[in-house]
Amino acid sequence: MGNSFDKIAMVGAGNVAWHLAPVLEAAGCAVTQVYSRSEEKAKELVIRLYQAEVQTQLDFSNSLAELFILAVSDDAIAEVARQIQLPAEATIVHTSGGQPLNALAKAPTKRIGVFYPLQTFSKLRPVDFRDIPICLESDDSKVLHRLTKLARGISRQVKLINSEERAQLHVAAVLANNFTNHLLRMAEQLLHDHQLDFTLLHPLIEETVAKALEIGPAQSQTGPARRYDEKTINHHLKYLRTYDPAYAKVYKALTKHIQFIAGNT
Amino acid sequence: MGNSFDKIAMVGAGNVAWHLAPVLEAAGCAVTQVYSRSEEKAKELVIRLYQAEVQTQLDFSNSLAELFILAVSDDAIAEVARQIQLPAEATIVHTSGGQPLNALAKAPTKRIGVFYPLQTFSKLRPVDFRDIPICLESDDSKVLHRLTKLARGISRQVKLINSEERAQLHVAAVLANNFTNHLLRMAEQLLHDHQLDFTLLHPLIEETVAKALEIGPAQSQTGPARRYDEKTINHHLKYLRTYDPAYAKVYKALTKHIQFIAGNT
Repeated sequence: MGNSFDKIAMVGAGNVAWHLAPVLEAAGCAVTQVYSRSEEKAKELVIRLYQAEVQTQLDFSNSLAELFILAVSDDAIAEVARQIQLPAEATIVHTSGGQPLNALAKAPTKRIGVFYPLQTFSKLRPVDFRDIPICLESDDSKVLHRLTKLARGISRQVKLINSEERAQLHVAAVLANNFTNHLLRMAEQLLHDHQLDFTLLHPLIEETVAKALEIGPAQSQTGPARRYDEKTINHHLKYLRTYDPAYAKVYKALTKHIQFIAGNT
Repeated sequence: MGNSFDKIAMVGAGNVAWHLAPVLEAAGCAVTQVYSRSEEKAKELVIRLYQAEVQTQLDFSNSLAELFILAVSDDAIAEVARQIQLPAEATIVHTSGGQPLNALAKAPTKRIGVFYPLQTFSKLRPVDFRDIPICLESDDSKVLHRLTKLARGISRQVKLINSEERAQLHVAAVLANNFTNHLLRMAEQLLHDHQLDFTLLHPLIEETVAKALEIGPAQSQTGPARRYDEKTINHHLKYLRTYDPAYAKVYKALTKHIQFIAGNT
C-alpha cells in the first residue's frame, strides 16, 4: 500500500473543500494551508480546522504539505495548476468529475492525480463521506496507492476510474442530479402558479427515488408516456402549451424518449 | 362532520386497491367485496382482507357497501361507472389523478366523488398512508364530509382538490415521478453500457432529492447548464451524439430549458 498523505494543503475554499478538509483531518491528516483568492473565504474554512493557515497566493514552495488538493471550479483547474509553486516531491490532484487527469499537465510536478468525491456539496448541508464514492486516477502507481489509502480512510466506496469513465460518469451525474432537480423545479413552479403546495408531491418524489434505487428505474417506469396513453399526453400538452410553451417542449421531448426506449426494449 | 363509510366495496384489484383496501380495514372499515374481471386477482387481494368476497360481475345491487371505490385504470373509469349496478343511496368515487369528477357522470347515482391518493403504488413495496396526500372532490357536501372523515382515518394530509387543480397536480406528478425516473434510467443505461455500476450514483441521487425537498429545487439548481458552461455542455453533447443521438436530444432540451428559466428569474 505505501504510506498515505499526512500533510495536505487545500487549494480552494468552496463547497468541496468545505466538507473534504475537516473529514480528512478527522481521518488523521493535518491540513496545513487553505488557499483562496478571497482571504475571507479561506478564513471561514480555516476556522473549521485544527491549525491550517490562510494563504491567498499560489506560492507553496515552503509548504510542508505532501498533497495539494485543487478544489476549484472546473475552468480554473488548468490555470491554477500552471501557476502554483510546489515543494519538491509534491503530489497534486483535482477533485472534478468534469475534467481529465491531464488538466493538471502543466503543474510543476509529475505526481498528478484525481480525487473525485461523487456527490453534490453545499456548505449548509452536512454530508456523510463514508458512502460517497471516491473516484481515483493517476498514471503514477505510487501516487495511486497513496491516494487509495487516503480515500479509504474516509469512504467505503473507493473506485479506480480513468478520465474516459469519469467523463461518462459526469454525464450520468448531470442527468441524475442537475436534470432531475430541474424537473422537480418545473413541478414546483407549476404547482406554485396554481396556489398548490409543492409538499403535496414530496411523498411521491421520495417513493419515486426509493423505488428506482431499489428495483431499478427500468422496472419502475410508469405513466402516460410508458403506457402510450395518447389521450392523456395530448391533454397534458394542450394544457402546457397554454401554461408555458417551453414546458410543453420538455414534456414532449421526454415523452418521445420514454416511448423510443420502450419501443427498443 | 356526518358519518364516514363503514362498508366499502373495492372495484378493481390493482396496485391502488392492493394497498388501500387493507389500510381502510385497519382504520375500522369493512371491505365487503373486491371486484376484478380476473377472479384470480380479486382472490389475491381478498386474502389480505377480513371477510371480503370475490366478485367478477359489476352487479352490486345486493351489496351492503355504502361506498364503491373505483380503482381501475384511467380509461376504464367511465365505462365501469356506466355498467356498474349499485344499491340505493350508494356513493361511488374514483381514485385517479388524471380523470375529472365527471368521468363518473354516467354512474347510476348522483353521489359521486374523487378519492385520489397522491402516490405511486407497486404491490411489492409497502406504503405508509399517513403521509400520503389524499385529494378529495365532490359536488355533494354530504359525500365530501363523509369522504373527509374516511380519508382522515388513514392520512394526516387530506386536501380538497377540484378537477382542474387535480389535472395540474397530475402534470406535475408526471414531471416529478415518470420523467425523473426516466432520467435515472438514462443514467443507469449509460453507466451500464460502460461497465460502470449505477450504485455509484445512489448517494448523489439521494442527496439531490433530499436537498431539493429541503431547500427547494430552485435554490438547488447547479451544473453546466445553470452556470452556462458551454465548453462542458458541448463536450457532453458531442459525446452523447456518438453514444445515442436520442440522449443528446434530451440533454439539449433540458439544458435549453434550464437556461431559459435561469434567464427569466
